[in-house]
Amino acid sequence: MSKQPSPHKEAALAAEVMRRCDELGRVSDDSGCLMRTFHSPAMTCANTLVGGWMRAAGMSVREDAAFNLLGRLEGSRPKAPALLLGSHLDTVIDAGRYDGPLGVLVALAALQSLRRDGVVLPFPVEVAGFSDEEGVRYQTTYLGSRALAGTLKKSDLNRIEEKGIEKARRKRGEFFGYVEAHIEQGPVLEAEGLPVGVVTGIAGQSRLRVAFTGQAGHAGTTPMALRRDALCAAAELTLAVESCGVTATVGQLDVEPGASNVIPGLAVMTLDLRDASDSKRAAAVAKLKRQAQAIAQRRRLQLEWRRVQESPSVRCDAALSASLGRSIAAFGLPARKLPSGAGHDAAALSALCPVAMLFVRCRGGLSHHPDESVRKADVGIAIAVLADFLRRLGERHV
Amino acid sequence: MSKQPSPHKEAALAAEVMRRCDELGRVSDDSGCLMRTFHSPAMTCANTLVGGWMRAAGMSVREDAAFNLLGRLEGSRPKAPALLLGSHLDTVIDAGRYDGPLGVLVALAALQSLRRDGVVLPFPVEVAGFSDEEGVRYQTTYLGSRALAGTLKKSDLNRIEEKGIEKARRKRGEFFGYVEAHIEQGPVLEAEGLPVGVVTGIAGQSRLRVAFTGQAGHAGTTPMALRRDALCAAAELTLAVESCGVTATVGQLDVEPGASNVIPGLAVMTLDLRDASDSKRAAAVAKLKRQAQAIAQRRRLQLEWRRVQESPSVRCDAALSASLGRSIAAFGLPARKLPSGAGHDAAALSALCPVAMLFVRCRGGLSHHPDESVRKADVGIAIAVLADFLRRLGERHV
Repeated sequence: MSKQPSPHKEAALAAEVMRRCDELGRVSDDSGCLMRTFHSPAMTCANTLVGGWMRAAGMSVREDAAFNLLGRLEGSRPKAPALLLGSHLDTVIDAGRYDGPLGVLVALAALQSLRRDGVVLPFPVEVAGFSDEEGVRYQTTYLGSRALAGTLKKSDLNRIEEKGIEKARRKRGEFFGYVEAHIEQGPVLEAEGLPVGVVTGIAGQSRLRVAFTGQAGHAGTTPMALRRDALCAAAELTLAVESCGVTATVGQLDVEPGASNVIPGLAVMTLDLRDASDSKRAAAVAKLKRQAQAIAQRRRLQLEWRRVQESPSVRCDAALSASLGRSIAAFGLPARKLPSGAGHDAAALSALCPVAMLFVRCRGGLSHHPDESVRKADVGIAIAVLADFLRRLGERHV
Repeated sequence: MSKQPSPHKEAALAAEVMRRCDELGRVSDDSGCLMRTFHSPAMTCANTLVGGWMRAAGMSVREDAAFNLLGRLEGSRPKAPALLLGSHLDTVIDAGRYDGPLGVLVALAALQSLRRDGVVLPFPVEVAGFSDEEGVRYQTTYLGSRALAGTLKKSDLNRIEEKGIEKARRKRGEFFGYVEAHIEQGPVLEAEGLPVGVVTGIAGQSRLRVAFTGQAGHAGTTPMALRRDALCAAAELTLAVESCGVTATVGQLDVEPGASNVIPGLAVMTLDLRDASDSKRAAAVAKLKRQAQAIAQRRRLQLEWRRVQESPSVRCDAALSASLGRSIAAFGLPARKLPSGAGHDAAALSALCPVAMLFVRCRGGLSHHPDESVRKADVGIAIAVLADFLRRLGERHV
């Protein structure tokens, strides 16, 4: 291991990744905040920008049928199964600049590091910039990575305008693994003073769309006892969600007609429930549904309860994760293992191949917010760990 | 009273009013529903349309500085103070076709009835189509009628884009009274089988804008205990509003950033409180403010609490109301007196001159909804009552 890159050695690549995150942070569908959604003009622009950086690193680049950006670097054994690296390039509304793009650019930087050192891997490597992890546009997640993994459902395809994204499907056996770097989006690494950690698994997730339909009416003349107020029902359910016992969020709530002097006739809300235990999450969903039904009945409202998405919890691959841990240890750092409360493309890819994830510390555990922040030094360590991991894998594969 | 018009005689005018309401119901700023807001293209179009009908009835027509449509018919004594009739031509979002326009068109039809019968009143009559009663555009009410009454505040003028609307102010003494016909928007007249009623007074109203600011964050990684969720606070306050003891409504609730997997960092809501008792309403507002402060403190949120509007309750003029009652009784109907839970332009005009209101029965008490419905026969009675009322006033004034 005498030739292994030191984190210190990756300062230039880390600085480049930071600059590239800044640059991508200006590519937005909204002039007031950072927002890139599935197949939007800003996503096309981001793919063009990152694609250019991939080409400059010697990769061949294409956009697949699901608008995923894919850069490929052939290895010394051309027919060998490939390793897939990457993360997503889409964002939430009013996003930070690291959630997603950092993983794509750290992967690219690790390959640049090997190239600089004259290392040729025996297997091909692809770097993916997935087109939809956050699910903002269609209130679903992983459209890009699920298209590639071949797990899109008819209901997904029916929901979206774009046709033929299922053609992005890749064959089982094409990839021997998927490895993703991502900001932690939680407080653990920061609390323990660690720059990176290895993810043990990804929490399962339920996304639901719930609509209460009542009766709009005049806010001044309809007696309180005769009202069928959809928003009051949504407010009750919002508080039930908050106390349902798993990690649970109402992130969207839309009211119609939405005038200050009109009783809301319709309230549509999203529910997001997550837990490491699939059975605990399923029980919480079932209980909330009963509560919503009771609210609707008591208030004489119609209830529409729709599961938008269901992602089971995912265990990361033991062998790939252990390799990541060895590369962290090679730099004298403890290989901290931690679970992910957030979903990641790795969850979708787990249907296609073994997956592993490297978490990078972020300030205050904050994400999905313009104040998202990572340290350049931590990015350097992430690049070095990933490059070391690739080099070790290459040595094993020869 | 031998020459008084019978309701039966007004069938043709009633049919014309119904057709005109239908026609105005197609003049909208939205292709999917009926919506006309202050100074919008549809409002300009509505003023043009109704202005044409006024001219055809022999009136001189103008739009004042506050975009109120004003038709004037001179009387036999040109310098005499005028009587103001009318209602508003703006609507809520997804409105019915009678709330507002019916009052303007019934006033016009009453004048057409007198003209047909060759009656010339001693005093001038103006018919106003007010430009903003619902307050949809700027979350305030009565912009048009308050401009005319001269009671706009600096805060109103600062809030709006349009300049100079305060120039619509009319002098005290120009009008000896304001009389408005309007659908009841409540269930009383229907329950008692009466086509019309006389309004005793208008409930006072408080409109508020409340904002909770917390911290947006990732819905999967932020522990429930560490959250500062603005929507959960808004949900609590919504339920407090519902049970605050007066007629109270949260009609608008907007959440930011508004993605299903992001904890809401900002929730902005409107509060609308009404009661016949100003002190009871003030107590409810004060209690809700304390509750909002407690919610914000417990959840570590910032609270912004802003009174958008405060309208005291208004008593209708005893003499004008008694005259309306006599005209109702002249048709063999009981002169049912009832309060108004809804606000009306008459409330704004009460600062300028004595006011009175005639309520017209509407189906199911429903308003602010496309299913708003009135009977043609009831409209005929309203026209006849108003024409009789004008004729009696004229006889008294000679």
